[in-house]
Amino acid sequence: MVKFEGYTFIDGGVCAAQGFKASGVIAGIKAGNTTKRDLALIYCSEKCKAAALYTTNKVKGAPILVTQKHLSNGVAQAVIVNSGNANTCNENGIEIAEQMCELAASELKINVKDVLVGSTGVIGQPLSIEPIKAQIPSLVEQLSADKSAEACEAIMTTDTRKKEFAVEFELDGKKCRLGGISKGSGMIHPNMATMLAFITTDVSINRELLEKALRKVNALTYNMVSVDGDTSTNDTLILMSSSLAKNKEINCEDKNYDIFVNALYAVMMNLARETARDGEGATKLLECIVTGAPDDATAQIVAKSVIGSSLVKAAMFAADANWGRILCAIGYAQADFDINKVSVELASEVGKITVCVDGAGISFSEDTASRILSEDEIKVLIDLHSGDGSAIAWGCDLTFEYVKINAEYRT
Amino acid sequence: MVKFEGYTFIDGGVCAAQGFKASGVIAGIKAGNTTKRDLALIYCSEKCKAAALYTTNKVKGAPILVTQKHLSNGVAQAVIVNSGNANTCNENGIEIAEQMCELAASELKINVKDVLVGSTGVIGQPLSIEPIKAQIPSLVEQLSADKSAEACEAIMTTDTRKKEFAVEFELDGKKCRLGGISKGSGMIHPNMATMLAFITTDVSINRELLEKALRKVNALTYNMVSVDGDTSTNDTLILMSSSLAKNKEINCEDKNYDIFVNALYAVMMNLARETARDGEGATKLLECIVTGAPDDATAQIVAKSVIGSSLVKAAMFAADANWGRILCAIGYAQADFDINKVSVELASEVGKITVCVDGAGISFSEDTASRILSEDEIKVLIDLHSGDGSAIAWGCDLTFEYVKINAEYRT
Repeated sequence: MVKFEGYTFIDGGVCAAQGFKASGVIAGIKAGNTTKRDLALIYCSEKCKAAALYTTNKVKGAPILVTQKHLSNGVAQAVIVNSGNANTCNENGIEIAEQMCELAASELKINVKDVLVGSTGVIGQPLSIEPIKAQIPSLVEQLSADKSAEACEAIMTTDTRKKEFAVEFELDGKKCRLGGISKGSGMIHPNMATMLAFITTDVSINRELLEKALRKVNALTYNMVSVDGDTSTNDTLILMSSSLAKNKEINCEDKNYDIFVNALYAVMMNLARETARDGEGATKLLECIVTGAPDDATAQIVAKSVIGSSLVKAAMFAADANWGRILCAIGYAQADFDINKVSVELASEVGKITVCVDGAGISFSEDTASRILSEDEIKVLIDLHSGDGSAIAWGCDLTFEYVKINAEYRT
Repeated sequence: MVKFEGYTFIDGGVCAAQGFKASGVIAGIKAGNTTKRDLALIYCSEKCKAAALYTTNKVKGAPILVTQKHLSNGVAQAVIVNSGNANTCNENGIEIAEQMCELAASELKINVKDVLVGSTGVIGQPLSIEPIKAQIPSLVEQLSADKSAEACEAIMTTDTRKKEFAVEFELDGKKCRLGGISKGSGMIHPNMATMLAFITTDVSINRELLEKALRKVNALTYNMVSVDGDTSTNDTLILMSSSLAKNKEINCEDKNYDIFVNALYAVMMNLARETARDGEGATKLLECIVTGAPDDATAQIVAKSVIGSSLVKAAMFAADANWGRILCAIGYAQADFDINKVSVELASEVGKITVCVDGAGISFSEDTASRILSEDEIKVLIDLHSGDGSAIAWGCDLTFEYVKINAEYRT
């Protein structure tokens, strides 16, 4: 976890903020699943201001189309989510997604338009409403402010760890909270990186700034993660605000707005970072920090190019300081800078080593490099020596297990 | 091999055309190598018109810089190539590349400016001239018109098979030949796809059209291959013409020019296709044929997107008809078309099956699909139903072996 000054990390995930409850149950959506929670509900006692971002893929899952429609007024009160089936590219996906919202709304006694929906799993398979319908009463009954973890489990597919973060901070002397859950492990690449992320807050902020903050932070977090270069059809990021913290509503980009944006960054950055760490089959988190770029956009392109290179990823799996592949990936990044000024360092908790200066290799201790790269969090530090632009991107190594998971996923 | 009417495939590879000889010897360039040829020479009795294309990576190997300089007059007579070390991003790479040319020129008694040079292997390691220098006399002594295969072996790195093709055809009643050798297995992605390819011909054609033909055919062949999305620092494609076929020099884009371009396509397409088949760790050749696109450029973008998807590649490894991943990769291709019109078929020697119509899955026999996908040449047939544009791209599956090779390559 990366800490941020002025923000206290707390438990509670998507239920940390005032007004929010969640639950997660076993519905048995994927054939044979009788043990893993696969249906989640997030609910707020109040109607929330809400904003969402979706995949840029032309193929958009049915749940996205329904969520977009329901969120057209910028208001939401609940989100129902299933794993085990993406409800995408099948025949009656929209009908099923609508039914999920209707069933939840009916049981919650709220307006169906205030329910959003998400699905993740295999594409192109019919999703039956029956197992979902059967669990709706239980899902609503179990809603609780301490069940963020159960909701988080229910949205996981090949994820191996829960991704939950929340922070507490002050605005105008009022205690505020912001937290979220996220899933995503494969088919992860900008834009956007995660499959599903749900962030809640009790900060009072107007709808326009809520969305603006979400876009800004998304660009620096989820869009800077790549696991395998594939952009999913179902990526959805939802941010809901209950306004229950009773701070004076944020209506302009003042100091309070900055505090809110930083809180959002603190949570989303850690969620995104853990998503990279939990990349399918990954054994290591790769963090590529680019500095000295002509501008931030250039730094972002370079950082993502390095994180996305299959050859860099395979070398990291082997703890092999094959910096030539890193320089190669910097070289084919579609951006403008002088490759002959580039320096590269590799670092982890046990040390740091310079492997490349002025665009060429220098001699270094292979033993030291191997020791550094044997850790499970690796930093690739790139200085372009061409300006003040910077960026961070997160990825993971490419392993046998990635191939195994994806060669066997559907069966 | 894909055949072409009017062209007879013959043996001889890079020596098939009149005037060309080749050789390949064991120089022991990579520490511990005592059994694999790793130094090649291609030589023509005549000064040739020559054209070359290089990697678009900002990091360009020293051999490319030297070749560009030597080829500035459009004339070449020999190419010296080593594997086992890319001679890139090291301290005295240009000096070493120049020395390779000088040593070859001196032994061949030709002008050093008429010698081109290529290197492939690991990046950023010093390359010693000594093992090369020691083998130059033997390399020249062994030059022969029947040693294309030995030169081909000498330029291989992780390649598992030799890539050699040549065709015979007629121009103005004169027998003409065009052939080549190529290497490339990993770090393969447009632009360009192969590491090294050397094509020779005896067709008489002016320098400008020689280069124009090379660019055109490269766009349709090597640039349509992807193994792992990484663009190498050393990609080099050289085409040399001895003019010994005695046809009337091709000076305009007439029928004879078309015949020449098609010959070049016949050889380069087969070389590129075999490069994809021989992708690191690959067990299958994937051929993605896109039709019905608004234009050829859109078709190319879509075909390359599908071939480049790690998830599609992993599914093909498992003979899993996970067409959702194919549709997903079509969906994130950066091109403009209506995803709701797209149909997808999967085919191989044993049959063909439709898996997606109008952008959605249809029911199909998983058994039949699995049988089709268990073959070692798979066709993914995509019709965008939006025009007359078409393209073909070649790739391979993503396997455990790919990870193994690339996690252990440098050590």
